[in-house]
Parts: sequence; structure tokens; C-alpha cells
Amino acid sequence: MRGVVMHAPGDVRVEDRPDPRIEHPGDAIIKVSAACVCGSDLWPYRGVEKLDGATPMGHEYVGIVQEVGSEVTTLKPGQFVVGSFWASDNTCEICRAGYQSGCVHRVLMGTVGTQAQYARIPLADGTLVATPEVPPADLIPGYLAASDVLGTGWFAAVAAEAGPGKTVAVVGDGAVGLLAVLAARQLGAERIIAMSRHEPRQQLAREFGATDIVTERGDEGIARIKDLTGGLGAHSVVEAVGTQESMMQAINSARHGGHVGFVGVTHDVSLPGLELFGALVHLHGGPAPVRRFLPELMQLIGDRTIDPGRVFDLDLPLDRAAEGYQAMDERRAIKTLLRP
Amino acid sequence: MRGVVMHAPGDVRVEDRPDPRIEHPGDAIIKVSAACVCGSDLWPYRGVEKLDGATPMGHEYVGIVQEVGSEVTTLKPGQFVVGSFWASDNTCEICRAGYQSGCVHRVLMGTVGTQAQYARIPLADGTLVATPEVPPADLIPGYLAASDVLGTGWFAAVAAEAGPGKTVAVVGDGAVGLLAVLAARQLGAERIIAMSRHEPRQQLAREFGATDIVTERGDEGIARIKDLTGGLGAHSVVEAVGTQESMMQAINSARHGGHVGFVGVTHDVSLPGLELFGALVHLHGGPAPVRRFLPELMQLIGDRTIDPGRVFDLDLPLDRAAEGYQAMDERRAIKTLLRP
Repeated sequence: MRGVVMHAPGDVRVEDRPDPRIEHPGDAIIKVSAACVCGSDLWPYRGVEKLDGATPMGHEYVGIVQEVGSEVTTLKPGQFVVGSFWASDNTCEICRAGYQSGCVHRVLMGTVGTQAQYARIPLADGTLVATPEVPPADLIPGYLAASDVLGTGWFAAVAAEAGPGKTVAVVGDGAVGLLAVLAARQLGAERIIAMSRHEPRQQLAREFGATDIVTERGDEGIARIKDLTGGLGAHSVVEAVGTQESMMQAINSARHGGHVGFVGVTHDVSLPGLELFGALVHLHGGPAPVRRFLPELMQLIGDRTIDPGRVFDLDLPLDRAAEGYQAMDERRAIKTLLRP
Repeated sequence: MRGVVMHAPGDVRVEDRPDPRIEHPGDAIIKVSAACVCGSDLWPYRGVEKLDGATPMGHEYVGIVQEVGSEVTTLKPGQFVVGSFWASDNTCEICRAGYQSGCVHRVLMGTVGTQAQYARIPLADGTLVATPEVPPADLIPGYLAASDVLGTGWFAAVAAEAGPGKTVAVVGDGAVGLLAVLAARQLGAERIIAMSRHEPRQQLAREFGATDIVTERGDEGIARIKDLTGGLGAHSVVEAVGTQESMMQAINSARHGGHVGFVGVTHDVSLPGLELFGALVHLHGGPAPVRRFLPELMQLIGDRTIDPGRVFDLDLPLDRAAEGYQAMDERRAIKTLLRP
């Protein structure tokens, strides 16, 4: 089969890779309907994260079940399924508490590489959620978004306790930040402040439910949030970038007693203890337990209540994956969808 | 009047200071029944925190109202009152959300110096809570504990979401850590693991409700907590020290999705972003909003349900304050009560 392999920073190729096969009786093989390039794929692309040799890429996916292992009981060939970037058993104590990304048996899908024609999904019963029927083509991008960016933005908004009566600030205008705006809206937030200086992204943020746009960053951004909230700061802040500046901007944009949900992968970030102590906020984040939210999100997508697939502004055949990486790296695209 | 003044690290004196007087119409003057030395008073005593010249000390207090300003409406002379280390109006939006230590009009009582015969309490209506009657002498230490260490330990346990069915680990065996054990017990925790290597403190922890004692620290301490929790980590962890090691011990002792409540003042602490991201915990802490809990805690003390005053294992007249500081610095005393 064809699949994306990163050989070095900036060097992404689509190559022949071995067809995946059932390795454990809990596995399923899916034919990938659509995959995409994640903001986190840009870390190794930019050389920030070290590559351990040539690496198959991709951890977001939707597809059709082709084959299931002997222990798989809830899935059958022909079903359309969505999974998340952590495979999880969905039965352990951590999963049952809603933290499937911390499952005691979790498997990182990045080790599988879903930017390909086929993919092996470990722990298939726990990981994959099927739709009642194979959905129409125009819903594929939405379901694909649920696999990571929507689920992650949603988790960030939940971690920030976005809800009725709340003012929510969102730091980061990538796909996750934009979908955190959508999530905050769905969760009933009263006011949603998107922090963005990119006009097309501001526009999408507004369409997703942002009531205010703040273009300032860092201390100026914090001051603007304070201005907009009677000097107090936001009740809820989503951090969807992962830099030192964005984390401190998020923490200091929240009011005392407020909630910060962070989902940007925090490379080279170091939180100063006294500043965190003085902020008196709630901080929660990490790899999103997308599986927790999949049934609800898939329902909202299926009945067309939300349209998270709009974050895909570049749609390419798999063989042109390198262009998709480049466009995201140069911020010409918010998110690239790849069709095998 | 007589009052404690710190002149330099290790140099604590009891001196004549001016009698406090009403400065703002919302002030009250109290005759201090008892004050005490806080673990945080040891930071400047040890030279870790810089002193800005000779400094009146003390921010914990109970006493009898002597005089009230013209705008004070809820208090009258003769009442026995407890306050916290942050004076707060208890009416602003932050106070109403339960974060009085982040009150928009807050005043740090450390600037007043309550290790003295009298003290001026700003924002008296918001800050002070009166008992129905002047309590018997044996309850004074308990009420004094409510002023900071009990309220802080309680907040830490609440921030860590201690409650029924939960396993709670407490890092730190000072007065705050020990009272977090008591709080976790009152909040209904199923299992409470106190981390302490000091026999008398282990004993008090057990009396306050600890079910297990762990003497290991750092990575070994984390491994012990994992052993005791089926490899998962505790649901709730209280951090009541404030060092790099204790913070990381707390964060890594919690399970994925678990809650860490931190109240140790985090000097020289720096939280590595990727480790925090990977931990996937809730982190909440800072200066405790003790005022939120005072009515409930004073009730529990008044009806003798809890006896937090047991953390005071050294009881000295105010004039011997220097001995009290020294004993705590050398860890010969858990906490020193001072009687003016």
C-alpha cells in the first residue's frame, strides 16, 4: 500500500509500505477513507522533535472496517468507524473515568501511521466508534475532525469548564483552537474571545461562535482580555499552541479561581512556580481523551448540528502529502485533508 | 503594644510597636487572643525570601473585637472573631465565586503583623467571622488553626477533590499537610496516605485519619504510591511543601485524570511542560481562600467534631516568639502558638 513516511525534517515522502495485518486478536484493519496532517506532525517536520529514523506518519483517521481479529466483538467489516490518536481498551479504571488517553493499555497511533491506504487499529473494540450507516461523502471531513482536532478542542473547552454564563478566551487559531471556539459555543458559553491575528482564521472563528477577536499577544493580549472582562480575566481559557508565551498568556488571562485547559504539546515550556501559585487558577490538560467525546461528537456531526470539517482548507490526494505538510508549515493552510 | 519584628534572617525580636488604630472606616481593631508562627514565616527567617527592612510579622490570628470603623455593620466590640491571612471584601465577583484570596480589594495580613497584642483588620465585615459566644479557652488553638493551616489544608484537599471512594496522598507533614489529612477524612476519603518520615508526625497523621504512611520521597515515594494504588496512582494528591521535588512527587503520584491540590509556596519551582502534559492531571492551588471555608470549619471546631489545634505542639508567651521560630526552623516543633 501507499503511505506517508518522514525521513528527515522537511522531507516527507509517499512510499510503498507493507500492508498492515492483524497482529493481535483485538486488532482491526481499516481501509482509510481520509486522514490528515496534524499540527503535532509539524514538530518533527520543523526539527523541534527528534525523528528516530524514517517514520510512518499520521494518527488521525476515519475508514471502513476490512477485517477484525478473533477477539473483536463489536465491529464488523463494512462499518464506517472513527478512532482517536490513542488506542484504548475503554474498560480499565482510567478509561472508565473518562481518561482513555491515559488507558493502562494505550497504544499511540502515531506508531501505526494512518496517513496511508490501510491501517491496523489496536484494541479495536475500545478504540473505534462506528456510525449507524456509512455516511455521505460530504460528512467525511467532519468525522475526520472528530478523530483529533475536534475532540482535542472539545476536551480543552471542557477542561476550561466552558459553559453557560462563562467568558471563554481561546489562545491559538489553529484547527484545535478554532474547534475549541466551536466547542465553547456548543457548551453554552456566553462570550467567546478568539485570539488571532489572521483574518481568514478570525472569520472562521466568528462563524464557529466567537463573539470577540483579540489580535494582541503576550502581555498586551492579557491586558486586552482583562479590559474585556471588567479587569478580572476570563472564567475559562483554552491554550492550543504549546509555547512558553502561549501558556503564560493563557494562565494570566484567566481570573483567580478560573480554569485553563491546555492541549498544545508543551515543548520547551517551563512554568514558574510562584507565578502559577499567584495565578490561583485551575490547570488541566495533556493528550485529549478524545474517545470520551466521540459518541456525542459523532452524533452532532451526523445530524449536521456542527460542521467541524470546515477547518480543512486544503484537500489533497495522499500522494501529494508533501504539499500538505508544506502548506501547513508555512501557515498557508489551517489543516490538510489527505485522501488515499 | 508588644509585637514581633523580624530584623534579618534568624533575627526575630519582640518590641514595642505603635498601637494600631482605625485607618479606614471598614477597619476593626482586635485584641489578639492567640497568634502563631507560619511555615511561610520561615522563608524570610531562612533568608530564602528577601526582607524589606525590619518587618512586623504574623498573619494568623483570633481575637476579641475592640473597636470598629464607622462603616462596619456586622461586628461589634466583645465578639470573638477568626480571620484569614488575606483580608477580603467578600462581596466582589471573585469572592462570591469562593476565591477570597483573590479578592479585587484584598489586603495581605502579613503587612499588618498579627504576632502582637492588637491588630488592625481591614475590610472587617468581609474578613472576620464571629463565633456565637466567646469560646472556652481550650478551643482557642482550634480556631487559630482555622485562620490559616486548617483552612489551607482544607482548600488543598478540596482542590485535590478528596471525597468518598477516593485515595488521597498527602505530600508534606507540616501543619498544613497534617490538616489536609484531617480534611480528607472529613470530606469522606476512603484511603489517606500520609508521606512522612517523622515518627511523631506520622502518629498525628494517623490520629487525623491517615490509613497508610509512606516514608519514601521522590521517585521512590511515587513508586510506593503506585504500588498502593494498583499501579495507577492516587485519585487526589495534596502538595503542602513547595519545593521542586515535592511538586513533581505530587504530580507524578496522581493517576491520569487525577487531581493535585498545591498550597506550598512554590519558591524556585519550575514545572517542565512536557512532564505536566504527559501527567494528564488537574492542578489547582495557590493562596488558599480560607474565608470560603471559615463558617463550616468554625462550626466543626465549635461542636468539637474536629480538633485541629493539636498541630500546636509549642505554646509560648508572645515575648518568647524567637524561641518559637527557632524550634520550627529546626523542626523540633510542628507549629508554635503565641499568646500575647
